[in-house]
Amino acid sequence: MSLNVAIVGFGNLGRAVKENIVKEKEFNLVGVFSRRNIEGTIPFSQILDFKSKIDLLFICSGSQSDLEKQAVTLIKDFNIIDSYDNHNRLKSHISKMDKIALEHDKIAICSMGWDPGLFSLMRGLFDAIGFTPYSFWGKGTSQGHTQALKQIEGVADALQFTLPNEKIIKKIKRGSSPVVNGKNFHLRECYVCSPLEKREEIKSKIITMPDYFEGYKTFVHFVSPKKLNSLKSFSHKGQVITSNNIMNFSLNLPSNPDFTAKILIAYARSFIHLKKEGRRGAFTIFDIPIKQIIKKDKFSYL
Amino acid sequence: MSLNVAIVGFGNLGRAVKENIVKEKEFNLVGVFSRRNIEGTIPFSQILDFKSKIDLLFICSGSQSDLEKQAVTLIKDFNIIDSYDNHNRLKSHISKMDKIALEHDKIAICSMGWDPGLFSLMRGLFDAIGFTPYSFWGKGTSQGHTQALKQIEGVADALQFTLPNEKIIKKIKRGSSPVVNGKNFHLRECYVCSPLEKREEIKSKIITMPDYFEGYKTFVHFVSPKKLNSLKSFSHKGQVITSNNIMNFSLNLPSNPDFTAKILIAYARSFIHLKKEGRRGAFTIFDIPIKQIIKKDKFSYL
Repeated sequence: MSLNVAIVGFGNLGRAVKENIVKEKEFNLVGVFSRRNIEGTIPFSQILDFKSKIDLLFICSGSQSDLEKQAVTLIKDFNIIDSYDNHNRLKSHISKMDKIALEHDKIAICSMGWDPGLFSLMRGLFDAIGFTPYSFWGKGTSQGHTQALKQIEGVADALQFTLPNEKIIKKIKRGSSPVVNGKNFHLRECYVCSPLEKREEIKSKIITMPDYFEGYKTFVHFVSPKKLNSLKSFSHKGQVITSNNIMNFSLNLPSNPDFTAKILIAYARSFIHLKKEGRRGAFTIFDIPIKQIIKKDKFSYL
Repeated sequence: MSLNVAIVGFGNLGRAVKENIVKEKEFNLVGVFSRRNIEGTIPFSQILDFKSKIDLLFICSGSQSDLEKQAVTLIKDFNIIDSYDNHNRLKSHISKMDKIALEHDKIAICSMGWDPGLFSLMRGLFDAIGFTPYSFWGKGTSQGHTQALKQIEGVADALQFTLPNEKIIKKIKRGSSPVVNGKNFHLRECYVCSPLEKREEIKSKIITMPDYFEGYKTFVHFVSPKKLNSLKSFSHKGQVITSNNIMNFSLNLPSNPDFTAKILIAYARSFIHLKKEGRRGAFTIFDIPIKQIIKKDKFSYL
């Protein structure tokens, strides 16, 4: 028997989930819900009519603030899985989701992706074994940061590239042990399309934006829409390392949304187990044993 | 309250567990049991006298066949954690441990280390996300293979180095997707001390040994004890990769037994959770969510 799933949001991530999930026999895609009028999608306003037909909802909203608002509403009627990634608000969001999910007898699988997600798992694992983890992202477009730029008034289009500080990576691999994962570990490069007269204000709003840019070495370039489009790429990279490179987990992704979609789908498999066990509330990658997402018997991998 | 633990076996792994565990406040080391008369150890024959004083036993026997026999006996009276690593007998060993543990109301945490262990976890995780995993080990001494050599009649001392086939690693990183993890992925280099007249027989026994050497490109060098000692090293390496290097987990270990000990200690933390949950039987790295081994709150890593 396959699990009836649906997707909310038809941006890059929603499209990638759709493309990947139709190949998996364990899942039956009921539909894609969108607030925009896109062919092949069901108007989001009708989602409650499908309540009894959907076992698990993939929340793939474009912006993190949209996702946050949608998730706390949808969890009252649906079991959900999301990729919420605003690191600084994770705890409050997940605690809220846990509370509402428990009240409404639902399961919420939260903040799944590669970071938060796989990288979180590696940080916990490396530290548990006794090695301080250091995380580096890029070069690649951060969807969260790009969305954050786009929400600024006057920004017509934008792109944000996160770049790792290669000098610090080298130092750590040679044995240095910084006390914290500092904001100096990364550079943030922003490409923005906006009217000339708004640029000064926008630049100031970007570099002072808490959580996303404040405290980072941030470069803001104002470019033409044509130039911006030429820079667009779905590729991304990242690594979690320890001093002397004793443990190293790295990703080299041709497509960030495609990879995030694949992680969501893998962890969506755990829903069946969580439900069977009678669990309710919010779950993160730390709560789910790998046996609940693997495709074959564990002895195939041991 | 700390967990009362003890160690069985005082070889490289047992020593490394002792060295590391005394630094961890969560654990109280009751003692080390050895069948050899080593200062600071308690005779193994007295272990049942300590039954009520030990919550969890680290089984660190030198050879895998010793470990196998000890584990199935000790699990009747103790909760245990082991690093059993004979890949081809894992399923039968763990199934047996599960059965006996259930009969005797015990918990067995089995086959913990970096392979089986962390690498198994990565293979399952990579495959669950949609990428075929390929495992490579070395260059480094394999304790299991070295023990296998030492058990051959006439072998006074031995060392086995596992080497990865670098050509195949390069091909996979460039996009090749072999169907299976073949025996051609590795070379096995054996250094053996033995009387001249036994060498031919020993060599033949090595290269035909099932599970360990049969089918591998195996080199056997007969050397002096002095030469052999000069080659001894605890360092080891390994990686689990996918085609195009999209996902990559690698280890560069100054000391293999020290790292294995650290993994055992990290996963020993899960014992408290498993016990609290009323679980019984055998558990592997696939059954234990990372939240049960992490040192801090999960939000520190998300």
